Amino acid sequence: MPDFNAVLATLEQELGWQRELYKDFHRQPELSLQEHATARAIEDRLTGWGYAVQRIGGTGVVGVLENGTGVCVLARADIDALPVTEATGLDYASTATGTDSDGSTVGVMHACGHDMHITALLGAAKLLADQRGAWSGTYIALFQPAEETAAGARAMLDDGLAAKVPRPDVALAQHVMATEAGTIGTTAGPILSAGDSIRITVHGRGAHGSMPHNSVDPVVLAASIVLRLQTIVSRETMPGEFAVVTVGASNAGSKPNIIADRAVLLLNIRTYDTELRGRVIAAIERIVRGECAAAGSPREPEFEYYDQYPLTTNDAAANAKVTGAFTAHFGNGVVYHAAPQTASEDFSRVPDAFGVPYVYWVVGSVPRDVYRDAVEQGTVAQDIPANHSPFFAPAIDPTLGVATQAHVVAALAYLAKGK
Amino acid sequence: MPDFNAVLATLEQELGWQRELYKDFHRQPELSLQEHATARAIEDRLTGWGYAVQRIGGTGVVGVLENGTGVCVLARADIDALPVTEATGLDYASTATGTDSDGSTVGVMHACGHDMHITALLGAAKLLADQRGAWSGTYIALFQPAEETAAGARAMLDDGLAAKVPRPDVALAQHVMATEAGTIGTTAGPILSAGDSIRITVHGRGAHGSMPHNSVDPVVLAASIVLRLQTIVSRETMPGEFAVVTVGASNAGSKPNIIADRAVLLLNIRTYDTELRGRVIAAIERIVRGECAAAGSPREPEFEYYDQYPLTTNDAAANAKVTGAFTAHFGNGVVYHAAPQTASEDFSRVPDAFGVPYVYWVVGSVPRDVYRDAVEQGTVAQDIPANHSPFFAPAIDPTLGVATQAHVVAALAYLAKGK
Amino acid sequence: MPDFNAVLATLEQELGWQRELYKDFHRQPELSLQEHATARAIEDRLTGWGYAVQRIGGTGVVGVLENGTGVCVLARADIDALPVTEATGLDYASTATGTDSDGSTVGVMHACGHDMHITALLGAAKLLADQRGAWSGTYIALFQPAEETAAGARAMLDDGLAAKVPRPDVALAQHVMATEAGTIGTTAGPILSAGDSIRITVHGRGAHGSMPHNSVDPVVLAASIVLRLQTIVSRETMPGEFAVVTVGASNAGSKPNIIADRAVLLLNIRTYDTELRGRVIAAIERIVRGECAAAGSPREPEFEYYDQYPLTTNDAAANAKVTGAFTAHFGNGVVYHAAPQTASEDFSRVPDAFGVPYVYWVVGSVPRDVYRDAVEQGTVAQDIPANHSPFFAPAIDPTLGVATQAHVVAALAYLAKGK
Amino acid sequence: MPDFNAVLATLEQELGWQRELYKDFHRQPELSLQEHATARAIEDRLTGWGYAVQRIGGTGVVGVLENGTGVCVLARADIDALPVTEATGLDYASTATGTDSDGSTVGVMHACGHDMHITALLGAAKLLADQRGAWSGTYIALFQPAEETAAGARAMLDDGLAAKVPRPDVALAQHVMATEAGTIGTTAGPILSAGDSIRITVHGRGAHGSMPHNSVDPVVLAASIVLRLQTIVSRETMPGEFAVVTVGASNAGSKPNIIADRAVLLLNIRTYDTELRGRVIAAIERIVRGECAAAGSPREPEFEYYDQYPLTTNDAAANAKVTGAFTAHFGNGVVYHAAPQTASEDFSRVPDAFGVPYVYWVVGSVPRDVYRDAVEQGTVAQDIPANHSPFFAPAIDPTLGVATQAHVVAALAYLAKGK
Repeated sequence: MPDFNAVLATLEQELGWQRELYKDFHRQPELSLQEHATARAIEDRLTGWGYAVQRIGGTGVVGVLENGTGVCVLARADIDALPVTEATGLDYASTATGTDSDGSTVGVMHACGHDMHITALLGAAKLLADQRGAWSGTYIALFQPAEETAAGARAMLDDGLAAKVPRPDVALAQHVMATEAGTIGTTAGPILSAGDSIRITVHGRGAHGSMPHNSVDPVVLAASIVLRLQTIVSRETMPGEFAVVTVGASNAGSKPNIIADRAVLLLNIRTYDTELRGRVIAAIERIVRGECAAAGSPREPEFEYYDQYPLTTNDAAANAKVTGAFTAHFGNGVVYHAAPQTASEDFSRVPDAFGVPYVYWVVGSVPRDVYRDAVEQGTVAQDIPANHSPFFAPAIDPTLGVATQAHVVAALAYLAKGK
Repeated sequence: MPDFNAVLATLEQELGWQRELYKDFHRQPELSLQEHATARAIEDRLTGWGYAVQRIGGTGVVGVLENGTGVCVLARADIDALPVTEATGLDYASTATGTDSDGSTVGVMHACGHDMHITALLGAAKLLADQRGAWSGTYIALFQPAEETAAGARAMLDDGLAAKVPRPDVALAQHVMATEAGTIGTTAGPILSAGDSIRITVHGRGAHGSMPHNSVDPVVLAASIVLRLQTIVSRETMPGEFAVVTVGASNAGSKPNIIADRAVLLLNIRTYDTELRGRVIAAIERIVRGECAAAGSPREPEFEYYDQYPLTTNDAAANAKVTGAFTAHFGNGVVYHAAPQTASEDFSRVPDAFGVPYVYWVVGSVPRDVYRDAVEQGTVAQDIPANHSPFFAPAIDPTLGVATQAHVVAALAYLAKGK
Repeated sequence: MPDFNAVLATLEQELGWQRELYKDFHRQPELSLQEHATARAIEDRLTGWGYAVQRIGGTGVVGVLENGTGVCVLARADIDALPVTEATGLDYASTATGTDSDGSTVGVMHACGHDMHITALLGAAKLLADQRGAWSGTYIALFQPAEETAAGARAMLDDGLAAKVPRPDVALAQHVMATEAGTIGTTAGPILSAGDSIRITVHGRGAHGSMPHNSVDPVVLAASIVLRLQTIVSRETMPGEFAVVTVGASNAGSKPNIIADRAVLLLNIRTYDTELRGRVIAAIERIVRGECAAAGSPREPEFEYYDQYPLTTNDAAANAKVTGAFTAHFGNGVVYHAAPQTASEDFSRVPDAFGVPYVYWVVGSVPRDVYRDAVEQGTVAQDIPANHSPFFAPAIDPTLGVATQAHVVAALAYLAKGK
Repeated sequence: MPDFNAVLATLEQELGWQRELYKDFHRQPELSLQEHATARAIEDRLTGWGYAVQRIGGTGVVGVLENGTGVCVLARADIDALPVTEATGLDYASTATGTDSDGSTVGVMHACGHDMHITALLGAAKLLADQRGAWSGTYIALFQPAEETAAGARAMLDDGLAAKVPRPDVALAQHVMATEAGTIGTTAGPILSAGDSIRITVHGRGAHGSMPHNSVDPVVLAASIVLRLQTIVSRETMPGEFAVVTVGASNAGSKPNIIADRAVLLLNIRTYDTELRGRVIAAIERIVRGECAAAGSPREPEFEYYDQYPLTTNDAAANAKVTGAFTAHFGNGVVYHAAPQTASEDFSRVPDAFGVPYVYWVVGSVPRDVYRDAVEQGTVAQDIPANHSPFFAPAIDPTLGVATQAHVVAALAYLAKGK
């Protein structure tokens, strides 16, 4: 095992500025593809530490540190925030607002912990830059915009990422989760599901609310569709197979006495299997078309697919290498085997574009006592605010330290001299 | 029968300015309780013709013309427009926008024909003012705001209407409908249903879209309620009994991958029977509470009742008197027996406040050929834009002339000398 | 008005044997098209009284009494019983069993009062036969089998009824109802709805209950159809228009852990309008096909139409004549204006085959005090056993007397001398 | 590894009578707890081979062969058939009928392969009895009735099984499946789910089909429940967690024009987790009660739990021992890692009563070519008749030979001398 401590010697000192920077990012979150101030803050630091820095994909930032012969490691952090109005009551809570994709003004919050991702990767980038003698090869610190809308990785690739940076041998990324702070979860194989969003518009015929016989009622049509969609998971999916079909939004009409002429459903699908994903989508279309026929709908329904997230599957060998390094460094009781998560990510587009293996791990963020009490009392779901909650509030310590070390250790598993 | 023609002699001349005024009102519609310019235009004219004019209930306008001994007739027109974006393509189409009750900017349109009601009543008011020698008694021309929100009649009454004008002996009102222009429909007894709106909020528990097991899904709950509500009419109401339960709006969620924490349903109910109305409302509450229990909803549902419209029931004797006058004046083929309508009105609050009888009739507005073709081909529902449609476009002629005459004739049935 | 009392002079004496005969019929009910003993009992009596008697349509019996010149009146009674196990506790209650159309053994009961119909018409036939001097013309007493299955009138017509009896000028029929005994309800125009039954078979794919993904679940499919069918009345029928769509039976599967391969729905439809009936049936087929498509059903659904009942519409002039006679004979407080009933009958096929007018009226059968108490307390639906209930128990008096008189009086309205 | 071949030397010879006996059992299947002839046939053979034979639990048969010192192995086969009418067309197909639990006459078939289980275990019992020199210890061959109704294991235990036979050290059982013949699937941990059946009766109020307003319609209530129950798996269960909620039967009403007064639902539940099982059952009760409340149901619903199957979880060490023996004996390509099955069994009640480990494995029965073709073409679900299908037809060869060997090999893993 490499000597991680050579590189981590000044960790406590770095955590000083990291904590303040984390609070700054938390106070000033920016929505997807609008991460202008965030990108500048990252650029400035990377440049200062000697990285060759490029803007790629608008608000994407990549710093490359070439440090002699050896393999090339790419580490990625996502940097965008969510249209959520913060309710944590923290003294560094966000009061920012932004303009959402539909033009509305919304509260903005780092409710998914990307501020932690940025700060930890910046810390690792600084440590590696400061201790170039301890390792050899190339380190790429990649800060990606717009993970929340599944647009950021693609934007960087569309802007030529693959041609603008050295081809990595492995890619690394991490995510803070509402689990016990101080722990790291890894797994070989699938760790995050594929995700798809669908906007379905079904058509009725509008009428005065008192004249239903002149209408094709889209509220009733949408209700029938929503209930029927439940059967894709309950009846059409093999018991125990992972599939989620969520109708996150179902909206029709705005007045009690006007029957509207359409309903709009927003669906989100999660699967761990490409073939199953295809079957689920086919079932959705079949059900929606059948229900429209049953309703006498005057026009074909419309399906718009968007926010499509790829499957995230850790390479077995790379995961073993990184997990081994984590275990060697952190000791017992920290690294555990993570179950596949129901969430999705667009990180894998980057290594997939290069055709290289990757490892994605999760880092806990809830104070140990709080978490263990909730587990004991069976109240995790109610009491522990999860990612995307307006109450999501990672404990800065030990989370930031662990996350910073994790990036250093995982990189050194590939880059350390004399391992 | 009175000599209606003495008063109607200058009708063609009046129709000249009425047509232009109608187009002006149509171009410049105003939302409920915001009818400021409309009210001023009415005031100016009534004042000019010698009426004693008062503002009552904000944008309500009442003109009283005392013309010797005799009975007192109150004629009412409603004056507000709807949050509908006009799509008629008429050269006098509205391009106006307004601020809806929820703060949003909306297109505004006289999509219910109130512009026709105003202009016809103004025409009648002028004709009666010009020919005071032909009649004796008191004529009250009442222009009521906010019929569309069921708030206007109550606003005028709350502002002291009953004390500010002479007590009428009878009240009259009319409505343009998407039936054959040149016809008038009357009936004794119920002609418009009672109407109630209910805002129902049901509570779920929000969660990430990929974690339905942490949620109580309000989209599914709302869908179950919508389908179950259908059974109130299909199973709980005696076949042939008039009841409408429309869920005009069902809205929950705004993102595909976020399970929301509530759904809001806007219901509209129509009945012709107070006891049945009570049973329908009880059934709605029972079903919503039962479905919330089935869902494991964490909070009681909330019911907010609003936009409550009274039953409109024509007095048999007054209807016979007015119908007789219409038949005498218009001749055969114009006046028909109208079936009870599924719509509602707040007009009856005014005569009910005085405890006096009233007559409400309907006036056709679709060119005869167009209407008869649609009837023949069974395409009325699809081809004839009804009230509240963005395509609703009354034929100015003969509609305006018939509606003006109807007000004159109905009034003279009570006021004409020597009848 | 004719002198009804000349013919009714011996009514009390006839009621003596009628009461016993009624109890006999009640004790020995026979299912549709199996009314062998019943038909023989009718034949014997009619023959004894001088009627020319024929068997028509298997268990149908027609007696013709030609009595000089004049018009011809046909009076009809239906004679079959129901597959219902009697629960009245009467000392003359039925304990009979029979073989239902599906081969099963069932309790049999005159749960619809046809025993009263037979006995009253026999009484009238005897009175008219005994008093031939009081009237002139032809009286046809027709006893029809299988009203409950809509097969009996057609069976008699198929067997040549129209050629085997004189053409009547008017046809008469009555029905006992669970309303106040001693009253008679009449109306011009529609009095009974058209009725249709549909057997719908929808196809799934069977599988072990633990392997839903291998199935197309017919239980879920049937449930979706049942809920969607509610919208035909709630949304597709004009409010206040009479339409009933009842799914009387929905059956699928027999074991908890076996997913069946089909579901069978039995529907009953009631309408008062041929065009609406067509729309309702089209909507049912549209909904079932749409839901099967949504389910991915492997085979087209099957629709079998049966038990089709025609509309029963009283001729206005004939109804006025008969109602007038009733009012003259029974005096005030007996004859009332009946609202259209939700039930159906096949009686009208007979006059329709001849192209002649008919009158159908209803006769109350619940003791006055019992009925009025239930009305007062709003408990009619719960407390008064209606037709087809195992507790249905007409009060013999005064029901039998009133029903016998009604047939005599209605016939004499056409046949009495010197009216 | 022990020398399995010493015991299996005469396998081919045994298979001669085994094939004929298998066909006999297949021709003469007997329903649960009615396996009288089957039990006698087993008894006779075991007795003949020197086993100490007892009847336990009515039609349960246990043969004990004490053969010196050593561990005690219990091997179990289930012996009952199903109420399925065979449709295989085999020349040894069953034409038997029986009386089902509801009194009806039904076709009877070994549609689950228990005839194979009996014959294979008898073959193993004979081989072990013939070659007592090759092993030492005690062998218990247990033939259990009524697996299909979850009643047989309990019946044997209730009849004192635990006191009547030596305490085993390990228990063994196998099941033929519709997978590739010649293969054996094993796994440590859960291999069969827990299963529960529930009979739910919900109450409406009956009425004539034309008078829905007098009813509480149980058909609509049942439909609402069926659709709502889908959400237990689709929304309340963690994605990827194994849970099945099948409504195998939903029955209400028998006539189109009679609204029934109740509906009966038969549910089957499968889970791999006791806590989840509890949550699923609680959700079912909550949903049914909520829907009954929504319907205005006049009586509380009734829940009857029956056919409850325990979880089947292989002991890791015992499974490793047996799997190792299988691999050693059968060589490569035969033994595979089986995924948990969705089916259930009551076998585990027996070892659980003794508190000893057990191993349960599955044996393929579909000719290799047929199976591989279906896999290749993705038509396994449609083309390969599974257990409980009227077309289920295990290939006698090589299935019977493999299943016989499997019992011998697994037993010898514990009993063989000098291993």
